[in-house]
Amino acid sequence: MKKDRISNNVIRRLPMYLRKLDELLAHGVDRISSGELGKQMGLTPSQIRQDFSCFGEFGHQGYGYRVAELREQVSRILGMHEGYTIAVVGVGNLGHALMENFGFEEQGFRLVAAFDLNPDVVGKVIKGVTVHDSSELSSWLRNNPTDIIVLTVPRTIARSVAQEAADSGVRGIWNFTNIELELDRPDVRVENIHFSDSLLTLGYFLAEQDAAENG
Amino acid sequence: MKKDRISNNVIRRLPMYLRKLDELLAHGVDRISSGELGKQMGLTPSQIRQDFSCFGEFGHQGYGYRVAELREQVSRILGMHEGYTIAVVGVGNLGHALMENFGFEEQGFRLVAAFDLNPDVVGKVIKGVTVHDSSELSSWLRNNPTDIIVLTVPRTIARSVAQEAADSGVRGIWNFTNIELELDRPDVRVENIHFSDSLLTLGYFLAEQDAAENG
Repeated sequence: MKKDRISNNVIRRLPMYLRKLDELLAHGVDRISSGELGKQMGLTPSQIRQDFSCFGEFGHQGYGYRVAELREQVSRILGMHEGYTIAVVGVGNLGHALMENFGFEEQGFRLVAAFDLNPDVVGKVIKGVTVHDSSELSSWLRNNPTDIIVLTVPRTIARSVAQEAADSGVRGIWNFTNIELELDRPDVRVENIHFSDSLLTLGYFLAEQDAAENG
Repeated sequence: MKKDRISNNVIRRLPMYLRKLDELLAHGVDRISSGELGKQMGLTPSQIRQDFSCFGEFGHQGYGYRVAELREQVSRILGMHEGYTIAVVGVGNLGHALMENFGFEEQGFRLVAAFDLNPDVVGKVIKGVTVHDSSELSSWLRNNPTDIIVLTVPRTIARSVAQEAADSGVRGIWNFTNIELELDRPDVRVENIHFSDSLLTLGYFLAEQDAAENG
């Protein structure tokens, strides 16, 4: 699989391809042309072919893509077969919601632990996962090497908790705190969830609608 | 302000510009060139100039952008001055977390109501907002025209609740249910939050790191 210098835009489209391919499979679609896939995703056929060609040859000349095969390849590229381990740090409403409802396993991840400060929460078992005391975070992570933490702590402690996890061997931080994390660990990858981006996009469309109606 | 045919990519970059401009303001930066802004955002200067030229002329030749002025313009384009009203439908862990922590007001929205089925939650007041019984959803929305609902109900009822809200005059749905909503209301805009996209991107980078180390 050739993988050199894949652009960020391609990488960010991969999860969207995955969702679309899952949807096609759920509808019993076995194969699809780059033209049809492009139409359904708002991309040009050549962009689709270019995206997948970054990773090897998945299409079949004059036939299109086998949906299940392509889905398998995309999920592999996304590391979904690696069983990366995840710990949730901060079991407030949001952390709790993610543990209960997100479906880490479906995405190929293994939720292995959770941490919180609140004595009412510490010791609870949520979806089979124990909530440990936050004071044990670094020692636990050192004894149980963990790939990713979900950062759902209050903003005030976000930086220090992220740094502690990074220093304890975590390789990725899924950041829900809406704070830009600048860690002194270039080897640790941070992905931010910015809820507001999509709400503001909604605001844009409503304002556009209003302008069209009033103008 | 000329606004015809703005591409989706430009629209989706606007909230990112907003975040960057807020960050610059917080660091006391008064003005910035398209070159420097591009560098900080991973875009080319010409892309920056092109993006903003869709909405009018914000830059000043040989001077760059006034950060506060540009921030004001971007927030206006995003409808943040409109005070759009929002109701949260589904006050489980996630709905609760959004009500407590999201900061709708900071983004220019007004949280006006919440709805849930659970008698333990109905009647509660969260951040000054009352949780109503879900059975009152359509009558409440008809009596209190509301721009947007935050959809944080269980997946099984997501479609019917979204349709009910759309039929009761809601114009936008901020969808956290991870279900593709196909409403028979083309005038209602849906924005989906797909948590998994950014987690899978993280998975990609870890897999890439592993491949580099092993290969």
